[in-house]
Amino acid sequence: MSLIVQKFGGTSVANTERVQNVARIVTETYKKGNSVVVIVSAQGDTTDDLIEKAAEINPCASKREMDMLLSTGEQISMSLLAMAIQKLGFPVISLTGWQAGMKTDSAYGSARIHEIKTERLEAELDKGKIVIIAGFQGINKYDDITTLGRGGSDTTAVAFAASLKADLCQIYTDVDGVYTADPRIVADAVKLDEISYDEMLELASLGAQVLHNRSVEMAKRYNVNLEVCSSFKDVPGTKVKEVVSVEKMLVRGVTRDNDVARISIIGLPDEPGIAFRIFSLLAQKRINIDIILQSIGRDGTKDLSFTVSNQHLEAALSVLNENLVSFKGKSINYDDKISKVSIVGAGMESNSGVAAKMFEALFEANINIQMISTSEIKISVLIDGSDAERAVKVLHACFKPEI
Amino acid sequence: MSLIVQKFGGTSVANTERVQNVARIVTETYKKGNSVVVIVSAQGDTTDDLIEKAAEINPCASKREMDMLLSTGEQISMSLLAMAIQKLGFPVISLTGWQAGMKTDSAYGSARIHEIKTERLEAELDKGKIVIIAGFQGINKYDDITTLGRGGSDTTAVAFAASLKADLCQIYTDVDGVYTADPRIVADAVKLDEISYDEMLELASLGAQVLHNRSVEMAKRYNVNLEVCSSFKDVPGTKVKEVVSVEKMLVRGVTRDNDVARISIIGLPDEPGIAFRIFSLLAQKRINIDIILQSIGRDGTKDLSFTVSNQHLEAALSVLNENLVSFKGKSINYDDKISKVSIVGAGMESNSGVAAKMFEALFEANINIQMISTSEIKISVLIDGSDAERAVKVLHACFKPEI
Repeated sequence: MSLIVQKFGGTSVANTERVQNVARIVTETYKKGNSVVVIVSAQGDTTDDLIEKAAEINPCASKREMDMLLSTGEQISMSLLAMAIQKLGFPVISLTGWQAGMKTDSAYGSARIHEIKTERLEAELDKGKIVIIAGFQGINKYDDITTLGRGGSDTTAVAFAASLKADLCQIYTDVDGVYTADPRIVADAVKLDEISYDEMLELASLGAQVLHNRSVEMAKRYNVNLEVCSSFKDVPGTKVKEVVSVEKMLVRGVTRDNDVARISIIGLPDEPGIAFRIFSLLAQKRINIDIILQSIGRDGTKDLSFTVSNQHLEAALSVLNENLVSFKGKSINYDDKISKVSIVGAGMESNSGVAAKMFEALFEANINIQMISTSEIKISVLIDGSDAERAVKVLHACFKPEI
Repeated sequence: MSLIVQKFGGTSVANTERVQNVARIVTETYKKGNSVVVIVSAQGDTTDDLIEKAAEINPCASKREMDMLLSTGEQISMSLLAMAIQKLGFPVISLTGWQAGMKTDSAYGSARIHEIKTERLEAELDKGKIVIIAGFQGINKYDDITTLGRGGSDTTAVAFAASLKADLCQIYTDVDGVYTADPRIVADAVKLDEISYDEMLELASLGAQVLHNRSVEMAKRYNVNLEVCSSFKDVPGTKVKEVVSVEKMLVRGVTRDNDVARISIIGLPDEPGIAFRIFSLLAQKRINIDIILQSIGRDGTKDLSFTVSNQHLEAALSVLNENLVSFKGKSINYDDKISKVSIVGAGMESNSGVAAKMFEALFEANINIQMISTSEIKISVLIDGSDAERAVKVLHACFKPEI
């Protein structure tokens, strides 16, 4: 008998039929003699509908009240799922985040998990019950409801799996696993049977929208066996674990991320500390920087380019323009029509030819590279957005023999 | 400075505009220097929509999961109201039932209040905050969410007013007070400036849908000053208090209740204990009996008639038919096309002519009385449903000079 945590996203519980389908998956797992803990997201567009309702009333509502509002979405779907499981004749109980012992800090809207008090949860499991838990939400030390922000339900699932020392944490979604590239772009993309945490982390960060990187980080830290499976097709998914195979494959996947904008500050004086001051200013505004490129310009000045996500572009431009004079910069320009295309694979670190092969393939396809960023297991290039799909296809074809 | 509890029903917060309207009423009260606690119901049809969603999935879902589901309705409306009040620039916080310390028993769907732990609530009031509380919901000793059932938000408001020793508990609704009769039926119905708890209790029990009788009972017990006011019109409402005026008026109001069905068991043996056995059987099934009439039939047998609410008719008939043989009854018949029309007034107890006057007015209008029930401050008659509106008009006209 194993303890299995299963997480179902909003699409998987979007309507009555799908809730019933999830109830079948859960009870099939339970019937095999497993203990089952289920984490659910809000149904379909519920969260967006609630956000819209709030915006109508007060676009600047406090985050505490937003969390109070949004947490109802998961509470609705978890109780409906519990009812569907009761209908099939199985013992079940639904628990809100606070009932399940999910303790967080007080950063409303993007709370971090402090600890999980599993007493209640384990007592219900001991009674033989299937336990349904609201994803995405917890409670802070003031007994106020918090939400974990984007990817919060994946993170909830992994956190409970880690706390309970579950044998497996299955993330059910509307795709049936992790692919070497987006199958909507690359027709012959291959589903991976397994992938390492590090590779999954890079893929997640680089735009593969299967798992949120925060949940992968946590799975890696606590060594949680993850599996990405489909709610709609009964086929094996992709297993995410520490070590994947003895013989490391060169490239695991090709990803594209359109949620990226480049900002360049032109004509900065060539003095020490300038970059530091710029980036600490952006950090104060909680703006995350991705790829950075610094080039020596003419006349003893230099240019500094970096990327931010689109949602932070406006705020970044605003704070930079305000401070341009104090940096002694000449001008600022930006480009939000760009994409980041990456190849990921644990085999890369021991094979220096990968980058050259990648650049060659892009050159032959006449795709101009604006910026480059590398880690031990990934290479990312920044290119024009209109070239992105073509770049993914070209790179996938180029590395396919090695996948 | 006073402490005022204000309760707003589902119609009063049904949409963005109305939520904003409620925010104005609340902040006007706060601006006058009062501490304000607000109890809200779920928006408009939210509760019905959630019930429908649940029925689609499982018509026999456990009441625990139903309460988990339904309690989200008030959580949504309270957070939206808090946001609307923030928009107007006032300090505010919303609290769920459990955060506000509402402790109940475990009768999911119709929980009774055990106690209210007001520490958190009072701490927020001390900080100068307007506190919005979800009506209709609490928490039991297992930390599970419960709902109070019908009229639960009125009851919540009175319970908090009692616990906090509030100076006033205002029930805002879509009518502007308590009338001598339903203004939709009787054009010249008069709004009462004040009414006693006992009279309000009879009116509430007898079909005036302004306040739930459970909340009036509690207000009487804890001596809470109640006021029924309109969310939509800024006019004085009706005050409900212990003693109303030195000179008691004869009749306070005329009510009609269509939610009533008569059941008759024909040909019961004239033995002791039969009625007791029948009513204890119904009590076991939690079926409430209202008016009872026992008549001696022919041949040493008797007939027993009584009324139940429509929702209990089917269950009552079913249990009675199963046991008819053991009661030695001959047959059972019922009528669900009847109405109960009542006159209520604290002055009645000292004036024996009221009943005669009532029966005469109905006789002159050619309305047949099937059953009669009286208390110290009310007289109810059971008549054919098709006569009910006419009876209300006739009685209101008859007693108007004395109202």
